[in-house]
Amino acid sequence: MPLSDVVIVDSTLREGEQFVHADFSRDAKLEIARALTSFGVNYLEVTSPAASRRSRTDAATIANAGLPAMVAAHIRCHKDDAAIAIDTGVGALHMVMATSPILRAASHGKAIAEVVRIAAEVGEFVRNRAPNIELRFSSEDAFRCPLNDLMNVYLPLSELRLFDRFGLADTTGAATPDRVAEVVNLLRRLTTTPIEFHGHNDIGCAIANAHAAAMNGATHINTTVLGLGERNGITPLEGLIAVMYAADRGRTMAQFQLSELPALCRRVAELAGVAVPFNQVLVGESAFSHKAGMHTKAVHNDPRSYEAMDPSDFGLTREIAISHRLTGWNAVRVRADALGLRLALADLKEATSRVKSAADEHTLSLDDVDRILTDVAALATARPH
Amino acid sequence: MPLSDVVIVDSTLREGEQFVHADFSRDAKLEIARALTSFGVNYLEVTSPAASRRSRTDAATIANAGLPAMVAAHIRCHKDDAAIAIDTGVGALHMVMATSPILRAASHGKAIAEVVRIAAEVGEFVRNRAPNIELRFSSEDAFRCPLNDLMNVYLPLSELRLFDRFGLADTTGAATPDRVAEVVNLLRRLTTTPIEFHGHNDIGCAIANAHAAAMNGATHINTTVLGLGERNGITPLEGLIAVMYAADRGRTMAQFQLSELPALCRRVAELAGVAVPFNQVLVGESAFSHKAGMHTKAVHNDPRSYEAMDPSDFGLTREIAISHRLTGWNAVRVRADALGLRLALADLKEATSRVKSAADEHTLSLDDVDRILTDVAALATARPH
Repeated sequence: MPLSDVVIVDSTLREGEQFVHADFSRDAKLEIARALTSFGVNYLEVTSPAASRRSRTDAATIANAGLPAMVAAHIRCHKDDAAIAIDTGVGALHMVMATSPILRAASHGKAIAEVVRIAAEVGEFVRNRAPNIELRFSSEDAFRCPLNDLMNVYLPLSELRLFDRFGLADTTGAATPDRVAEVVNLLRRLTTTPIEFHGHNDIGCAIANAHAAAMNGATHINTTVLGLGERNGITPLEGLIAVMYAADRGRTMAQFQLSELPALCRRVAELAGVAVPFNQVLVGESAFSHKAGMHTKAVHNDPRSYEAMDPSDFGLTREIAISHRLTGWNAVRVRADALGLRLALADLKEATSRVKSAADEHTLSLDDVDRILTDVAALATARPH
Repeated sequence: MPLSDVVIVDSTLREGEQFVHADFSRDAKLEIARALTSFGVNYLEVTSPAASRRSRTDAATIANAGLPAMVAAHIRCHKDDAAIAIDTGVGALHMVMATSPILRAASHGKAIAEVVRIAAEVGEFVRNRAPNIELRFSSEDAFRCPLNDLMNVYLPLSELRLFDRFGLADTTGAATPDRVAEVVNLLRRLTTTPIEFHGHNDIGCAIANAHAAAMNGATHINTTVLGLGERNGITPLEGLIAVMYAADRGRTMAQFQLSELPALCRRVAELAGVAVPFNQVLVGESAFSHKAGMHTKAVHNDPRSYEAMDPSDFGLTREIAISHRLTGWNAVRVRADALGLRLALADLKEATSRVKSAADEHTLSLDDVDRILTDVAALATARPH
C-alpha cells in the first residue's frame, strides 16, 4: 500500500514514558492524547495498566476520554496483565515477549516452543475474556533473532488466528533498512496477519527503518513525539511524517493537520523536560535555515531547489542568513531590495565583499549588513553619473 | 568492501561551517582538525578558499599544519576558485555543480551537456596546474536527478580520467535508502571511478543513506560532528561510527579512538553554540539509560540484551534508573545488594511496590528509594523469624 496509508501507532504515552526523564501527569497524558488525535493520529499506545496503580487509572482515563482513537495497552505476555488491562476499557492489547536468543536468556529464559505456547495461551484467554478487543502479539528483538526462530514463532501463531497483528521490534536499535526489509518481507510472504514495526534509534536508522518496513509490507508503524523512549528513543512521529510528506505531499496534508506538529513537539518536549534538539527533523530550529551563498541564491529563485519540504505547510518560515562570510551577492541583493535600495551590480558586489570582510573579523548582525548596504547606496548616489 | 573500510571524509570545517549558528575561529578550526585526526579521520574538507580572505588563510593554515590527513577544499566548478584553492596548498579539490533539473534552473541555468563541458574544462585546468592533486567532481542534488541525466554527466567524464572520485549528493536530504542504493549501484556498475556519498538529513535518513551508499559500493562517506550543516545537517560522524561499530566492533575499535568521540562531540557543540541533543546517537545524555522494569532486569543479567553498543568502548557508562513507577523488583534487588541489604523476595516485592506507589504520587530520587529499602529491611529484621 502507499506509504501515506500506513497507520501511525503513537506510543508517546508508553514508550515516551520510558524516556529516562519523562514523568507525565494524568493531565499531561490527556493533553498529549488530545493533541495527537487532533493532529490526526488514530492509535495511541499507553503503559501497561499493571505497572502501577496510577498507570491503571491513567489508562482508564485515556481509554474513556471519548477520543477518536484506538487506545492500546502495552502489556507483558501474562494473563494477569491482560486481565488488568481489559478491565480499564482499552480497545486493544499490545502483548510483547522476547524472542532473540540473547534477550530470551536475559529476560524470561524460555525456549521458542515455550514462547509460542505462552502466546497462544494468553491469546486464547484474551479472546475468551474480551472477544472484540484488538490483539497484537510482538516479538521483542526480532531483528537479532535467527529467521527460523522467528518464523517458528509466527507461523504457528498465524494458524491460530488469535491475533489481529504481529509486531516486529528492533529493540536494541541496531538494525539497518536492508535487514528490516528482509525480515518484514519474509513475514509478510509467509503469513497474512498485518505487521507492525517498532524501531529504536541507537545507531540512528529508526526513521529509515520505519520506511523500509512500510515499503516491504508493514501496515502499522510505532512512533513517539521527538522519538522519546528507552535510551535515545524510537522513530520520531515528525520524522515519519517527513518521510510520508516527501513521498506524497498531497495525501499527507489531507490526512494530518501538519501545522499543529511544531507546537505538539514543543509541548511534549516541555512536558518531558527536554529541549527540542537544534537538528531535529522538521521541528529543529535550523531545519529551514539557509546560509551559504550558492544556497541562498537558488532558494531565492526557487525554494524547492534546496528544500525537501515547504515550511509553510507546517506553519513554519524559512530563514535566509546573509550576515556571515559565506554570503553571496544574490541574497544581499534581495535584502537591498527589501530596504528599498536599488543598487547596481558593481555596488552589490562591493557591499557583499564588505560583508564578507567584516564577518571575517567579527560576528555580524543583520543591522550591520543593513548599515553596509546603506553606506554603499549613499556612496553610489553621491557618485557623478 | 566491508563497511569498516569505508573512508570517512569529515566536513565539519566546511559543511559544519554552513550550520546557521557556526562561526569557527581559525584556532577553533585547528582544534577540531586535530581532534578529528586524533580520533582517526583521514580526510578533512574545508570551506572554499574563494569564499573570503579568512577562508583562504584558514584553509592554508589547516593544509600546512602537518596533520596526518588529506585536506580537501570544497569549491564551485570554476577555474578561479580552483586556482585560489590550489595556491593554499590543500591536497585535494572537491568540485561541485548542480545536476538536477530544479537545481540547475535555480542555480547556474545550464544544460547537462554544458555541465559536462565545464566540469571537463575545469578538470583539465586543475590537472595541468596541479598534476598530483586529488580531484573529486560531485553532482549536487543527484537523487532528484533523472538517471539518464546523471549518467550523461558521469559516463563521459569517467572516460576522460580526470577525476579521482565522483560525488553523489543528496542535497535536499529527501532520499531514502532504497533510492540511494539504486543510484550508487548503477553508477558503480557503469564506471570504475570511486564514489563518495554526501547526504543531508531533512527527512531523517542521512545515517541509513550513508550505510546504503557504502553497502552498494561507495568508498567515501561525508560526515560532520553532530551532523552540523545547512538546515538540519548531514550524516553525523558519531552516527556513521555507530553503524560501523554495529557491523564490526573489532575493526571499528582498531581503526578509531572511540573513547575520544564523546568529548569531540561536546567540544564541537560548544564551539558551534549548541547543546548536544538529548537523543543524539551514541553521545546524547540518554543513549545508555535504561528505565522500564523489563529492561533493567535483563540489562542486569546481560547488558547486551538491550544495548546495541557497549558504552565502555566509548568511555561512557550506562545508567539504570529505578526511582520511578515503571521500575521492577530485579533492579531494586541490585540496589538493595549495593546498599548491603539482603532482602527476601517478598520484602523486595514490598519495597518495589512502595517505590511504585510513591512515584505515582510525586517525583522520586534515588535517596527516596534507598530510604524505602532501609525501612523495609528494618521491618524485616524486627519481624519474628
